[in-house]
Amino acid sequence: MSGLALPEVNPAVLDKRDRIVAALAAIVGARWVISEHDELRAYETDALTAYRQVPLAVVLPGNTAEVSRVLACLNEEGVKVIGRGAGTSLAGGALPLTDAVVVGVSRMNRALHVDTFNRTIRVEAGITNLAVSGAVDHLGFFYAPDPSSQLACTIAGNVGMNSGGAHCLKYGVTTNNLLGLTVVLMDGTVIELGGDHLDSPGYDLLGLLTGSEGQLGLVTEATLRILPKAEGARPVLLGFNSSADAGACVSEIIARGMLPVAIEFMDRPAIHICEDFAEAGYPLDVEAMLIIEVEGSPAEINEQLENIIAVARRNGAVHVREAKTPAAAAAIWKGRKSAFGAMGRISDYMCMDGTIPTGRLPEVLVKISEICQGYGLGVANIFHAGDGNLHPLVLYDVNDPEQLHKAEACGADILKLCVEVGGCLTGEHGVGIEKRDLMVHQFNATDLTQQMRIKSVFDPQWLLNPAKVFPLEGRPEPARVV
Amino acid sequence: MSGLALPEVNPAVLDKRDRIVAALAAIVGARWVISEHDELRAYETDALTAYRQVPLAVVLPGNTAEVSRVLACLNEEGVKVIGRGAGTSLAGGALPLTDAVVVGVSRMNRALHVDTFNRTIRVEAGITNLAVSGAVDHLGFFYAPDPSSQLACTIAGNVGMNSGGAHCLKYGVTTNNLLGLTVVLMDGTVIELGGDHLDSPGYDLLGLLTGSEGQLGLVTEATLRILPKAEGARPVLLGFNSSADAGACVSEIIARGMLPVAIEFMDRPAIHICEDFAEAGYPLDVEAMLIIEVEGSPAEINEQLENIIAVARRNGAVHVREAKTPAAAAAIWKGRKSAFGAMGRISDYMCMDGTIPTGRLPEVLVKISEICQGYGLGVANIFHAGDGNLHPLVLYDVNDPEQLHKAEACGADILKLCVEVGGCLTGEHGVGIEKRDLMVHQFNATDLTQQMRIKSVFDPQWLLNPAKVFPLEGRPEPARVV
Repeated sequence: MSGLALPEVNPAVLDKRDRIVAALAAIVGARWVISEHDELRAYETDALTAYRQVPLAVVLPGNTAEVSRVLACLNEEGVKVIGRGAGTSLAGGALPLTDAVVVGVSRMNRALHVDTFNRTIRVEAGITNLAVSGAVDHLGFFYAPDPSSQLACTIAGNVGMNSGGAHCLKYGVTTNNLLGLTVVLMDGTVIELGGDHLDSPGYDLLGLLTGSEGQLGLVTEATLRILPKAEGARPVLLGFNSSADAGACVSEIIARGMLPVAIEFMDRPAIHICEDFAEAGYPLDVEAMLIIEVEGSPAEINEQLENIIAVARRNGAVHVREAKTPAAAAAIWKGRKSAFGAMGRISDYMCMDGTIPTGRLPEVLVKISEICQGYGLGVANIFHAGDGNLHPLVLYDVNDPEQLHKAEACGADILKLCVEVGGCLTGEHGVGIEKRDLMVHQFNATDLTQQMRIKSVFDPQWLLNPAKVFPLEGRPEPARVV
Repeated sequence: MSGLALPEVNPAVLDKRDRIVAALAAIVGARWVISEHDELRAYETDALTAYRQVPLAVVLPGNTAEVSRVLACLNEEGVKVIGRGAGTSLAGGALPLTDAVVVGVSRMNRALHVDTFNRTIRVEAGITNLAVSGAVDHLGFFYAPDPSSQLACTIAGNVGMNSGGAHCLKYGVTTNNLLGLTVVLMDGTVIELGGDHLDSPGYDLLGLLTGSEGQLGLVTEATLRILPKAEGARPVLLGFNSSADAGACVSEIIARGMLPVAIEFMDRPAIHICEDFAEAGYPLDVEAMLIIEVEGSPAEINEQLENIIAVARRNGAVHVREAKTPAAAAAIWKGRKSAFGAMGRISDYMCMDGTIPTGRLPEVLVKISEICQGYGLGVANIFHAGDGNLHPLVLYDVNDPEQLHKAEACGADILKLCVEVGGCLTGEHGVGIEKRDLMVHQFNATDLTQQMRIKSVFDPQWLLNPAKVFPLEGRPEPARVV
């Protein structure tokens, strides 16, 4: 586990494993409880595959009422719970624990109700992100947040991690596209948050739950905002002789208040790896490339691209190619979308996720490259530049323990740099287990204590996803509150 | 106080009043503590003037450190605290209590730092809303949320109530334009929330504090998002033969995903009252009127208005007037902006604030008129239609106790109707004292308990603005938590 400590295993829980499995089976039916070691291994990790733990059991409830009974039972028995969507979390947020039960939402995957007049859709939380857009596509609508894993990842996971995606520059992240939630608390209580309307009286518990990484409750249903599809969209591809030039171009676009739907950044290593894989027609003689997409009516698209290209040329763009046809647009995006797969063919990598004020982009890119050189590790940068959300891919060999250690240290230095320039440890992947011990660089003890007090209110025994988000040191004793 | 119960007065606090005043004077200096009854009367109410309480004292700290010491002192003494911006709250959120100290932010009113590259401004929380835009106007930027009281109201109050305004249809409310906060908790602890970046690791305490009506902590500084001013803007004035037609027009505009900056609605009584006062040139032969403003480049403005007018004609618009000149635009807005003043000339009124799913607008407008007729009270409707945020003005005579009682009951029925159609009790004014006892119609006991547990974490003794937001019945015993 590479130095990341986990909470102590509770031996009493392991001893009563059979009783727990039987109790869960009585609630959801035996076929929806997984307790054989070989089957459990399918759940031993998420997309941060360097870390693995086989859970005590996996339970797959079919509806909110069953989730409520499952949690009430496990709360009574003092058993830890890890909520799980599709297990695509990149920061280990869904990593199981030996003495914990994984509660999966995969059976709860229906779209329940579409309301195009109010532009909302009600879904069960196990529906995949792409299936939400799929359910409203024929009506001319879509669901905006689009994480790279959207084919697999669930709304439950998106809410837990406050997921973003390439298009969140214009449309915001999950929290900006969420109107209501049904949440089951650890003691089995079911609460309804938000609704079909703007704002809500009282405290913003809807916002609080979003991004809380499964530590405050399990989401079983959600009301999402859907948006009418734009009349059209078109990307432009811009090449620069330095990452600093490309970064300065992004900064100026944002500072001027232009609002493309996406600004994706790739540096030289990323360009070459993607071009080799996807033959997207990227320029191979530049140091950095931006893919900027705008949308609207044909007139709006032309006007926006004209303004963007003017900014790009002022910032030293040496290559400018507008996608004149849908095929050309598809080719530009094909390279970007296959980036992580293409990268995986040539090297193991650790995908970092930090956010910085966009004005600091040029200097931070230079410093990241210096940090990686210092560790003797390669780095490729492919990320959502418009929101300042960086994704440096630190390249290493997963089978070399020393390299894993170096990559972790290198990633930590990059994230500390993000905090130093006024940014933060995560943009859209969450803290999970990966960045848990780095939280002390973002927050002082007072700030962390205040957050942990909130967890104690929702989950007094600290049973929900307890290994994550907060450093193990300085935690309160699990204790009952008002 | 018209039937609204307040928490019991703590006689022990009244007895030690002199000691408390002396302690506060030792922290901030005697000139910044108000304790004379006549001077305190200036603080006895907010904009919900039907309710009044003269506070124990008023203290005006000069910086975060002083706020921290003031709260630590009052927490130690067990004295209730009411935070106060400019006292423009329309729901009684800033109503003082006899045994409470009012902590005002009026001395902390500076803009601290402007960063146009990252589009942020750091301010002290007592700065007025309009002064924020004023501080960046010469740089071509503005601060988007624009409550009607923006000349007077403070950022502290805006954060406390999650304030909106006419332009929040496009730009969002306070929570969407806020990046960071410095907050002092009741025990004097200072916490920093958010920062200059997108998203933040850990729980969304920034969102939780926003709209918490001064019950979780006092805001002393804020980092706000500023936006580049649009190239241009132009309103169109649309008249209809029925409120239902105007409502249907709004619903169709929203459902089609058009995004004007503002959609303001006025019904016949409102049109006549405003026209009499402001001579804005409104049509007097229609039942309802919309003011819709769009912005962008000249080409974008033309295209948007063309599409909007087509929708309006399809929904029965009988009067269409585009503002062809800046003077014509100013005239259209002059009437709207003087609406509340114009109304005040002819009648007392109670301004309600409910939000509904925009698709239900036509039917809700009809029902509101029926409810008011049932009580024999007049009603005028002037509101932000695009977000479904209603502001029915229930007309009554403030000096007739029976009419006040009827107006309150009528207002309550209107808000219950909003909840029934899937909406909520407030859009931008907050719950305050006015809607406190209606919260049971929005939330069940479980939902309310969960919210109140959050308050107990931040403020275990329930000293911060305790008379507001939650019904007095069903509250937890003030108690220490982890």
